[in-house]
Amino acid sequence: MKFICNKTELSEAIGNVSRAVSQKSTIPALEGIKVRVSSGSVELTAYNLEMGIRTSIAAATEGEGEFVVSTRLFSEFTRRMSGDEISFDIDENLVINISCSATECSFPAMSASEYPELPKVDSARSFSVKQSILKSMINMTSYAASLNESKPVLTGELFDIEDGNFNLVAIDGFRLAIKSEITDCTENYHFVVPKKALLEVSTLIKDDADEKLCTICTNDRHIIFEIGNVFVISRLLEGVFHNYKLSIPSDCKTEVIISKRDFSTCLERCSLLIDDKNKSPIRCEVGNGVMKISCKTGIGKINDAISADISGETVTIGFNNKLILEALRAAEGDKVRIRFNGAMKVIEILPLEGESFIFLVMPIQLKN
Amino acid sequence: MKFICNKTELSEAIGNVSRAVSQKSTIPALEGIKVRVSSGSVELTAYNLEMGIRTSIAAATEGEGEFVVSTRLFSEFTRRMSGDEISFDIDENLVINISCSATECSFPAMSASEYPELPKVDSARSFSVKQSILKSMINMTSYAASLNESKPVLTGELFDIEDGNFNLVAIDGFRLAIKSEITDCTENYHFVVPKKALLEVSTLIKDDADEKLCTICTNDRHIIFEIGNVFVISRLLEGVFHNYKLSIPSDCKTEVIISKRDFSTCLERCSLLIDDKNKSPIRCEVGNGVMKISCKTGIGKINDAISADISGETVTIGFNNKLILEALRAAEGDKVRIRFNGAMKVIEILPLEGESFIFLVMPIQLKN
Repeated sequence: MKFICNKTELSEAIGNVSRAVSQKSTIPALEGIKVRVSSGSVELTAYNLEMGIRTSIAAATEGEGEFVVSTRLFSEFTRRMSGDEISFDIDENLVINISCSATECSFPAMSASEYPELPKVDSARSFSVKQSILKSMINMTSYAASLNESKPVLTGELFDIEDGNFNLVAIDGFRLAIKSEITDCTENYHFVVPKKALLEVSTLIKDDADEKLCTICTNDRHIIFEIGNVFVISRLLEGVFHNYKLSIPSDCKTEVIISKRDFSTCLERCSLLIDDKNKSPIRCEVGNGVMKISCKTGIGKINDAISADISGETVTIGFNNKLILEALRAAEGDKVRIRFNGAMKVIEILPLEGESFIFLVMPIQLKN
Repeated sequence: MKFICNKTELSEAIGNVSRAVSQKSTIPALEGIKVRVSSGSVELTAYNLEMGIRTSIAAATEGEGEFVVSTRLFSEFTRRMSGDEISFDIDENLVINISCSATECSFPAMSASEYPELPKVDSARSFSVKQSILKSMINMTSYAASLNESKPVLTGELFDIEDGNFNLVAIDGFRLAIKSEITDCTENYHFVVPKKALLEVSTLIKDDADEKLCTICTNDRHIIFEIGNVFVISRLLEGVFHNYKLSIPSDCKTEVIISKRDFSTCLERCSLLIDDKNKSPIRCEVGNGVMKISCKTGIGKINDAISADISGETVTIGFNNKLILEALRAAEGDKVRIRFNGAMKVIEILPLEGESFIFLVMPIQLKN
């Protein structure tokens, strides 16, 4: 079989699917990319048994068939060729002959017979969301998903669609992140997607995606994200996700409006005194127009003060430096609203207005 | 003792000296930066026993003395402070108190008593070279210095000053790089400087250094590069450097003028077929207006052709892909001149005109 295609398009397609190639697999074919040549188009597939990515490009073809090619050689030879058009000729011995400009090279392909089929997602529910919105939702919440495999469902993020609202939720036992958007999906349903797949979806969405839609189809076990002509297929995570709505505080005793940058740089300074051997919560005293931040470890001590717009009761609370820093980095806007409900109650980080995102962080009890 | 200085200046000074801090040393003080406070200025020193860097900045000071500070804490706290002015107060217990804007932090310093003195370079010879020229000379030749410690003198570069010419020379047994400049130094002398020190000198020279001079002072054992107010002190390497002038061919049978980019991208494609387990020389046939390049290994095979301006005899020669690639990357200009003297004679890479640089690469005998 033969195909001739545009080098740049092929290179981009290889780059897109290669994110799902297995690094090491007992099925060697999964370390390569499956190429399927059919009339007028070439389809590329990569699959690591948890997630697959499939795309296709237009090509002038001769014959039909499929083979598996080394990811490195396919990607690097395509990228490094000097011409605009690249031609592939796969002979009966499964040797790939590539020619482009004055360059001719050849190397063996693998048979596609061992390559597992991607899961089918038939009779699926589906809804659509703007690609740019989905990307931002993932980027704002994925930090809070659990890294601990002992409760697998928490290593994913909950897609919760209810009454025209679409909430994306991550939680790891110490913190919780919710990002909300309006959806025109009229059904109410929910499912949990592995964080790894979501991060790839976010990467595959281009920064200039703007108004383009991503269609999300699910059945009971799998999900397909359709991003232009790139399809990301992932299994769903089973198990009961935490009932996150119960964790959101209904009132607050102290509210602070603070510059995200001032608070972050202050916590970054505190973090210089904290390492695996020298741990301590950050001590935070809120009141009289100022947040006093201090920390003391075996490395040294620090006292800092940040002016802020504070209303309500004074409060002294302890927290983990990294949990608050990561929440601040994920938050939108120059300023955030922080709500406290006493020294031992969850800390809530919100946008200046409304609740388009809600980040919760558990406090740490301070000594003395 | 106390000092107050500009945060940005201090941060830059710490960045400059920290390149010479010991990563792991039996003298713990060498893992820090030595700070010496004297009237109106603060001097910073780092030293890893092979190379030292010293600089100083203006400061409002109170008292005099010296101490050693953790490189990480000194660098990171300075960099992450929010104000423009930063103040240090070192008490009698060698505790450093830093204040900047609303931030106050403190941590212990170390005594400077264990910190070794930098070598003195008295009664030295010296000459000057434009910083930008020195940087370019180092960047064009250092790739060819040996990594093999069994002949230490070849891990450095030869500074050869003779009859108003300044040659910088590196050699590793398989290749040789010479970059020549005119100097107004009237003495004839030479010395060998460790590559590591030269790479730091190159990094310390800013891209906009233009006409500024670097003064280079040497005695029998040490060298000081003076780059603005930053001083780099290194030991010299002992031993007899290869008499490089004898290696330069006096004539040639084939001369090729070729696009550096075309040749490099071709060799990069060939390199995809070569790894530790699959080695092969690149086969190069020169003649009739074309350089035919081919390579065959256990991974696959490639045939390529680059049009070139060729004069003289046809020649078929083998060479190592990396040695030629690194020489091409170091060469100035869009095109280079390549001179061959037969299949088993050294390959010479030169600029289009003149001999401002000469790169030599040993060929590899081809089978069959």
